Amino acid sequence: MKFGSVIGIVVSCLGIAMGATMEGTNVAVVLNVPAILIVLVGTLGATIAACGLEAHLKLPKTYKKALMPDDLDLVGRVDELVSFADQARRDGLLALDEAVKGIDDPFTRKGIQLVVDGTDPDLVAAVLDAENEAMRKRHAAARAPFMQAGALAPTMGIVGTVFGLVNVMNNLNQPSTLGPLIAAAFLATLMGVGSANVVFLPMANRLKELSEAELHFREMTLEGILAIQAGDNPRVVAEKLMAYVPPKDRPSEDEPSSTASAQKQAA
Amino acid sequence: MKFGSVIGIVVSCLGIAMGATMEGTNVAVVLNVPAILIVLVGTLGATIAACGLEAHLKLPKTYKKALMPDDLDLVGRVDELVSFADQARRDGLLALDEAVKGIDDPFTRKGIQLVVDGTDPDLVAAVLDAENEAMRKRHAAARAPFMQAGALAPTMGIVGTVFGLVNVMNNLNQPSTLGPLIAAAFLATLMGVGSANVVFLPMANRLKELSEAELHFREMTLEGILAIQAGDNPRVVAEKLMAYVPPKDRPSEDEPSSTASAQKQAA
Amino acid sequence: MKFGSVIGIVVSCLGIAMGATMEGTNVAVVLNVPAILIVLVGTLGATIAACGLEAHLKLPKTYKKALMPDDLDLVGRVDELVSFADQARRDGLLALDEAVKGIDDPFTRKGIQLVVDGTDPDLVAAVLDAENEAMRKRHAAARAPFMQAGALAPTMGIVGTVFGLVNVMNNLNQPSTLGPLIAAAFLATLMGVGSANVVFLPMANRLKELSEAELHFREMTLEGILAIQAGDNPRVVAEKLMAYVPPKDRPSEDEPSSTASAQKQAA
Amino acid sequence: MKFGSVIGIVVSCLGIAMGATMEGTNVAVVLNVPAILIVLVGTLGATIAACGLEAHLKLPKTYKKALMPDDLDLVGRVDELVSFADQARRDGLLALDEAVKGIDDPFTRKGIQLVVDGTDPDLVAAVLDAENEAMRKRHAAARAPFMQAGALAPTMGIVGTVFGLVNVMNNLNQPSTLGPLIAAAFLATLMGVGSANVVFLPMANRLKELSEAELHFREMTLEGILAIQAGDNPRVVAEKLMAYVPPKDRPSEDEPSSTASAQKQAA
Amino acid sequence: MKFGSVIGIVVSCLGIAMGATMEGTNVAVVLNVPAILIVLVGTLGATIAACGLEAHLKLPKTYKKALMPDDLDLVGRVDELVSFADQARRDGLLALDEAVKGIDDPFTRKGIQLVVDGTDPDLVAAVLDAENEAMRKRHAAARAPFMQAGALAPTMGIVGTVFGLVNVMNNLNQPSTLGPLIAAAFLATLMGVGSANVVFLPMANRLKELSEAELHFREMTLEGILAIQAGDNPRVVAEKLMAYVPPKDRPSEDEPSSTASAQKQAA
Repeated sequence: MKFGSVIGIVVSCLGIAMGATMEGTNVAVVLNVPAILIVLVGTLGATIAACGLEAHLKLPKTYKKALMPDDLDLVGRVDELVSFADQARRDGLLALDEAVKGIDDPFTRKGIQLVVDGTDPDLVAAVLDAENEAMRKRHAAARAPFMQAGALAPTMGIVGTVFGLVNVMNNLNQPSTLGPLIAAAFLATLMGVGSANVVFLPMANRLKELSEAELHFREMTLEGILAIQAGDNPRVVAEKLMAYVPPKDRPSEDEPSSTASAQKQAA
Repeated sequence: MKFGSVIGIVVSCLGIAMGATMEGTNVAVVLNVPAILIVLVGTLGATIAACGLEAHLKLPKTYKKALMPDDLDLVGRVDELVSFADQARRDGLLALDEAVKGIDDPFTRKGIQLVVDGTDPDLVAAVLDAENEAMRKRHAAARAPFMQAGALAPTMGIVGTVFGLVNVMNNLNQPSTLGPLIAAAFLATLMGVGSANVVFLPMANRLKELSEAELHFREMTLEGILAIQAGDNPRVVAEKLMAYVPPKDRPSEDEPSSTASAQKQAA
Repeated sequence: MKFGSVIGIVVSCLGIAMGATMEGTNVAVVLNVPAILIVLVGTLGATIAACGLEAHLKLPKTYKKALMPDDLDLVGRVDELVSFADQARRDGLLALDEAVKGIDDPFTRKGIQLVVDGTDPDLVAAVLDAENEAMRKRHAAARAPFMQAGALAPTMGIVGTVFGLVNVMNNLNQPSTLGPLIAAAFLATLMGVGSANVVFLPMANRLKELSEAELHFREMTLEGILAIQAGDNPRVVAEKLMAYVPPKDRPSEDEPSSTASAQKQAA
Repeated sequence: MKFGSVIGIVVSCLGIAMGATMEGTNVAVVLNVPAILIVLVGTLGATIAACGLEAHLKLPKTYKKALMPDDLDLVGRVDELVSFADQARRDGLLALDEAVKGIDDPFTRKGIQLVVDGTDPDLVAAVLDAENEAMRKRHAAARAPFMQAGALAPTMGIVGTVFGLVNVMNNLNQPSTLGPLIAAAFLATLMGVGSANVVFLPMANRLKELSEAELHFREMTLEGILAIQAGDNPRVVAEKLMAYVPPKDRPSEDEPSSTASAQKQAA
Repeated sequence: MKFGSVIGIVVSCLGIAMGATMEGTNVAVVLNVPAILIVLVGTLGATIAACGLEAHLKLPKTYKKALMPDDLDLVGRVDELVSFADQARRDGLLALDEAVKGIDDPFTRKGIQLVVDGTDPDLVAAVLDAENEAMRKRHAAARAPFMQAGALAPTMGIVGTVFGLVNVMNNLNQPSTLGPLIAAAFLATLMGVGSANVVFLPMANRLKELSEAELHFREMTLEGILAIQAGDNPRVVAEKLMAYVPPKDRPSEDEPSSTASAQKQAA
């Protein structure tokens, strides 16, 4: 369900817009330049101050990733690793040297390369763990602006509304202008709470879930690489790695996937 | 008490409805379409953006589970495991091969099957632990939309109310319509806070408790399977597992359950 | 100070009632049936949905325990355990068999019984740890309704007040009734915030502290039982256990308690 | 900077009082008896219910400690421990028997006494760790009323204000009294938020920092005592303990402190 | 991007100021002396009470560091450590004695000095870990005033606004002054929420990120020093340390950095 986040944001905006229209409000009113300046530019500045410029230059890429995440093919990766385990057991670890070039995923390639180079198992695990930990920190840094914006935007909305109300209070002697002025003041709150609820907080949560899924994927890969290096039986490798795959995605025993066949050959 | 959550939601709604009726409010007023669109559809969209579509397609199943959870028969499971321990001790682990087919619970069956296959104890523990960890993550993903909705609905209510107030303020020159317009604006807050308090947050908490109870159940099972594999005395298996059962549910020593009799035989 | 919680709730209610009376409010006004229905029944229903019916059927017992907790006699328990250590060292572990019947506390009795039965020390520790963990979970479940109520009651108060304000807004054309209607609407907020602050949150915190004190008590007991099984010198047992007792409650060295005398005998 | 907290509270009160006076408010207005009764007595009762009476009887002592904490002389303690290590290495552990009487700090004295008595190193560590853990719990219990008060006082202020507004609404037909009545109602909010922000929350944080500093101090002492018992070279003891001292407080190498001289002697 | 935080605060202020100006508010109105006194001096006093005077005397230095942090040259440090590893492997650890004087960074110098002195590896790790832990605590203490101010300033703003409203309510009989008085009362809220959102909270978060980056830097250094002491192959040292460097900053294999050349020499 790659486009879940896009669908969700569209559904949320449609629901709010339709409800507001039925109440009689002209929805276009939210495109209020002062409110946008105070809430969105004010929040952007505060998140830059909080998270640094670098994380913000990557925002378009981060947004794209959150809205259209890569698919993580757990079963395909298990098959790939089990076939390496099979080959290593038959022809030795050095036989993987040629296979290394054909691996797309840089993490898997680096791991198998280390194994082929005869690196110490503890060092293989340490280097790959450090890569994962670094990825976790990069992901956390990439979603930090969303989390900060989710926390700051509603209060920036209050700043905008209070500024508007200060203006209202200084014009109490012109009652005919009060209504529209108060309405305009409230638009900042609307913009702040709305952007946080519909965009920033859901994006932050989505990115967190995607990061966890990718780490889970890499942990499975790391376990597989270490099992290959230890010379484990391909059946045992498949058994270990399948526990990382949700039950409903696991190939049934009769299915002619390479994993299932490795299990049979080994049995 | 399987229907606790249903009863609770009914009690809560009745209390609120009776109180509001006594105050003179017509409760049917909350069935306000704009408020429902803004709060419930707006929140649904935001939770889809936050948690992905998949978790939402499973919502009916999740609701059903929260409202009518399966009973977890701790004592029955202990009896079952102790009887396996007894059989394994008398006739060897391979004697369990036939019993495996009769086991209803897939987790227990997988564990006993691994034991019968002569899998290494560490691998048995690793595979079953990975199953439990995966279940914990699946449960967390299933209740994530409820937690997100509980946090987002009240602020969506504020979005709806502020939209309504913006409308009110732009109509200040028609005082006769103000009252009903303000009343309608407040309905969104009511819908947001009410749905979060009466449905989303209690459901999220309930699902968390049910998940913890099921993990507790499986941890007991895992401990039992490892004890069977280790060839422990059935009395020791029963002693170990009974510590997972609340004192008031433990069979008294004179009760002719299979556990108690295993204890006697072994004594 | 067994009645601390009763005294505290009385002091808090008196302070609020006196302050409100001095401001000129008739305190009896809070006994407003609609507010009570919305806030208290609404909250009760939501906590039942969140925590299940079972925890609520035990509420009277839980309240009683929070208001009048059992005294935990740390020094008495130390004396008891040191005397067992003394007896076990003189006459062997089996000599404790008769003493077992005289032990009031079920946890201590179970532990000593396991020791007398010659159970493996690791299993003794595992079984007693599992008992403690189960007690911790039971306590957490027992106070969960208070924590949920403390979080939900104030927002239920808002639900009640907004319902009232909706009613007010629909009666704007009868200005003479507005004041009392708004006043009645606010009573729900009062009931919600007041009940959470004066009863639910303090009760939840109190129960948490009592649970921690009881776990501390049992951890000391467990350490003592393991030391008895290990055949430790009674003086060492006393030294180890006294570290669990607050300095001001420790018997001075000249005091003729059984611990002190055991220390002397052993010295 | 022993009086930091006193200075801070005075600065905060002065800033608020001066600002309010410049706005034209008479600051003495906050000495409103109903507001004080509702907020301060109401909060006191609720914290008694939450934390028990005992913690409240110690409040004057706790306040005094927070406002005028003891100085923790890290370098002095390092010097003392290094001199003990020196003496123990020269004349044996028993030579410390006389030094024990001269030690002011009960924790250090108890530790050295245990070492002189020839207690097993693991038991020394266990007993002293239990002392530290018990102190950490005592400190947490002592600051619990401040943390509870910081959380409860603002909402007690809301209780007071809503009570006041209920009164206002029931007197809407006497418009001339409305202003002062609303003003009086707001005083409870002022008292609640002000007391939490200026007194309760800063005190709670200050006590937490002081507790952490004292635990750090004791951890260093414990490490030193174990090093003495292990017969470590005084230079190594000094090296280990100096890592606990902030760089700017460390004696320069040319300074004739006993540590530096121990380092030289040992070198 | 050294000036990220300065740029962010400027962007945020500009956005808010432009939005408020377009709404018709005179931005200079926020320079309201009573609001500044209540919110900023009130918050300063409360943070002094909470965190002590010392942390506040260092504030100018802390601000400067947050706004213009030092660059952490991960690759340069790796090159430096690999060259030491190379030298140590060729000429022995004592050969580093001269290199020690040329090291700028005190942490690296202290570590290499300990290695040259022949200190036990466990003690080297313990001493350097204690240094890092102490730095982490110093950093946490340095940013504590910002975190406290971020939490306290908005509620101080409420204190200021309520004080202003009390004043307003006592002047209800002079309607012409009400507008400006209410406007002035709101300025305190503006100052409190604005200063927390634009300055205090972003600064606190920025300082936390900088602290974590520096700890990461030091952990890499510590790992390198221990590898040097263990006599690891320079290629292995480079491999281990490169995992701490983000992929995009790693030198490509053809680049003539000392690390790459060390890798080649060792290969």
